[in-house]
Amino acid sequence: MTALPDVVIIGGGFGGLRAARDLARAPVRITLLDKSNHHLFQPLLYQVATAGLAAPSIAAPIRHIFARQQNLTVLLDEVTAIDAAASTVQCQHGGALAFDYLVAASGATHSYFGHDEWAVHAPGLKTLADAFEIRKRLLLAFEYAERESDAALRARWLTFAVIGAGATGVEMAGTLAEIARQTLQREFRRIDPREARVVLLEGAARVLPPFAEDLSAKARAQLEGLGVEVRTGCRVTKVDAEGVTFESDQAQTGSAGGTTGTSSRLLASTVVWAAGVAASPLGKTLGVPLDRAGRVLVSPDLSIPGHANVFVIGDLASISTDGKPVPGTAPGAKQMGACAAANIRASLDGAARKPFRFQDVGALATIGRHAAVVQLGPLKLWGLPAWLFWLFVHIFFLIDFRARAVVMFEWAWSYLTFERHARVVAMPEAAPPPRPQPDPSRQR
Amino acid sequence: MTALPDVVIIGGGFGGLRAARDLARAPVRITLLDKSNHHLFQPLLYQVATAGLAAPSIAAPIRHIFARQQNLTVLLDEVTAIDAAASTVQCQHGGALAFDYLVAASGATHSYFGHDEWAVHAPGLKTLADAFEIRKRLLLAFEYAERESDAALRARWLTFAVIGAGATGVEMAGTLAEIARQTLQREFRRIDPREARVVLLEGAARVLPPFAEDLSAKARAQLEGLGVEVRTGCRVTKVDAEGVTFESDQAQTGSAGGTTGTSSRLLASTVVWAAGVAASPLGKTLGVPLDRAGRVLVSPDLSIPGHANVFVIGDLASISTDGKPVPGTAPGAKQMGACAAANIRASLDGAARKPFRFQDVGALATIGRHAAVVQLGPLKLWGLPAWLFWLFVHIFFLIDFRARAVVMFEWAWSYLTFERHARVVAMPEAAPPPRPQPDPSRQR
Repeated sequence: MTALPDVVIIGGGFGGLRAARDLARAPVRITLLDKSNHHLFQPLLYQVATAGLAAPSIAAPIRHIFARQQNLTVLLDEVTAIDAAASTVQCQHGGALAFDYLVAASGATHSYFGHDEWAVHAPGLKTLADAFEIRKRLLLAFEYAERESDAALRARWLTFAVIGAGATGVEMAGTLAEIARQTLQREFRRIDPREARVVLLEGAARVLPPFAEDLSAKARAQLEGLGVEVRTGCRVTKVDAEGVTFESDQAQTGSAGGTTGTSSRLLASTVVWAAGVAASPLGKTLGVPLDRAGRVLVSPDLSIPGHANVFVIGDLASISTDGKPVPGTAPGAKQMGACAAANIRASLDGAARKPFRFQDVGALATIGRHAAVVQLGPLKLWGLPAWLFWLFVHIFFLIDFRARAVVMFEWAWSYLTFERHARVVAMPEAAPPPRPQPDPSRQR
Repeated sequence: MTALPDVVIIGGGFGGLRAARDLARAPVRITLLDKSNHHLFQPLLYQVATAGLAAPSIAAPIRHIFARQQNLTVLLDEVTAIDAAASTVQCQHGGALAFDYLVAASGATHSYFGHDEWAVHAPGLKTLADAFEIRKRLLLAFEYAERESDAALRARWLTFAVIGAGATGVEMAGTLAEIARQTLQREFRRIDPREARVVLLEGAARVLPPFAEDLSAKARAQLEGLGVEVRTGCRVTKVDAEGVTFESDQAQTGSAGGTTGTSSRLLASTVVWAAGVAASPLGKTLGVPLDRAGRVLVSPDLSIPGHANVFVIGDLASISTDGKPVPGTAPGAKQMGACAAANIRASLDGAARKPFRFQDVGALATIGRHAAVVQLGPLKLWGLPAWLFWLFVHIFFLIDFRARAVVMFEWAWSYLTFERHARVVAMPEAAPPPRPQPDPSRQR
């Protein structure tokens, strides 16, 4: 056993999981390190944040996934640094771990564009803890509005800002609008949840920028049909406890806030950050060139310059196919994981490595009930067909049969009843009173 | 509308819920206050703590339950004091609220017998937050054992102490033993989870003291069959970060720790408190006599002496039927809720109130797969029949059809696969390294 080469995989996301599985029959000893105990089906994380799914429906213990893969050991630990020259990784608890091959797949985190102080006011959505935090904030906002006697504060509790109109932002905004208009409509006595405002702020000129322009327009129309206020060309300049300040490309009229020149203020107690991602800080410890988002510029075989035994994949890697950057999506990560595993096997066999080529599988984003956009090469879908396609794909790719069955049931139930069953907030014993102070400068 | 009498109900547990529902057609205006947003099906909370069920399967938003009951307003707020003379309750956020009738049903919390410093080492199980904390600790204990190189520390991570052998303690201990022996058996490479020790400590001479003696003996045999070490006649004298110190009625041999006279020490990183409950502190603010556990000694009609418009029910109330104290169970709380509602309606109609009589519906406790005990008057069941009865009852009483369907699916799946699907821990970004220091006085 001791003669087998050691493969260390950092991260149990889509990329790390695929690399580990593809090495199941290789003559190696694999150690998979992750700082959490579960693989997360991140494309459905917004459903946990919006109370549509319970966390266990989209997360599975990593060691359960690999229970039968005898050449693999799972360790719960956080890697704090990679020493490529010494071929070791430094773990927070377990000390240094030596490797013959490394697959670094530690993913991405939020980026607040240098304004980390915004994080406390505008949580992002990457982990289950993030999803619980957002779920708590949005459900409690309606609760606090119901017990608030001041009309202006009530309006602020009922204003939800989503920053960033990529897939996650669009999904969050559309679902929030549905919750206010459908799920909660009968449940309050003092407020009308349908009066809640959901404002989606995007810096680019259109929502879902990676999609074709006509699909962006379809997505915007669908969002507006659900009641979302879409503001494009808006650069956020400040996020605080009371809301968001942003600059617009042109003066806009409407109710999103007063306009002073090009700077506007939106009073909102709940703000969700879906704007920026940055690669895991682990990339910095490699000592090789990174791109602007902190991603490692990998060689065609996904290894790093000067260290052919160190592979970087997924959201931590920056690579292009035919001049187009590989997107930070599950298919991108999985394909890289497969390629890294194949190249490790090739090296073990003394065979030539193959360069990574991204196979574009299309892009899709859901917006709400019967509302989604899908782009598959020349094929474009929107509305109900796109939504059904999205449903099918997401259930199909869920990690195991059990989750698929449960999620199908949850969705069928929600579809028929408009309910969202996971509207449960675990309250700590002494919750601080989260009451914003009246703001004399408020505009609504 | 303003002429209608105001009924304030404190607490959305079994008692408060029943009182509120039974007043649905009464000419009253009801305000239901709860500090959390959900009703919790507490009899299955241990399943959330042991990763068998997702939280939303046993919790439903209180305002969803009452969406169609137009005479009822739900407010998320914590009542901090009751002024019976002024007929007001004081809320943490909403200020004072006047009532014509009050139903106080704020339940019970853990009691550490004057040792609140034990709480941090031995969480109890009353809320979803408690269940998540226990789930986290027990799942991470196995993770930490897997990465621990010191044999003594590994043994400590793999020792689980449950204090108190009432229904919750027995359920926790039995399920923990199942997790170690069945669920996790294939998933670790460095430890064998089957070597985990589960030690159940009980102060009385037998487990499940409220049951008949022969059923206690059956329960103990079933626990031991699952691998639980049962220690009765043990009074816990200390709980700290490293384990539990206890005094035994007689010197016991065995592996639970060395014996020094009658004082023993059990090194265990995970300790669960299932020993004592105390009534909600709200009882103290009423200024009427309480029993030793802080429960309000109510009049036969469930009102308090001197204030016929203030009812106290459920775990907050102390009352006997035919000389036997009403147990702090869901049936007790529901029956009291119904009685309080009936007595409010009687007062509104100018009719006579009726005294509360508890209708004993039996007692049941589950231990593990095919293992439970049931006592229904003269009928006693154990083993598979008791377990099937327990399953049926618990599914039947779940709050809504949706939860029943999901829980049935979850349980069928777990039964067939031995899996526990909710083995998911939401890790905060910077988890502190929870590594106990070696203890030179350790005994194993």
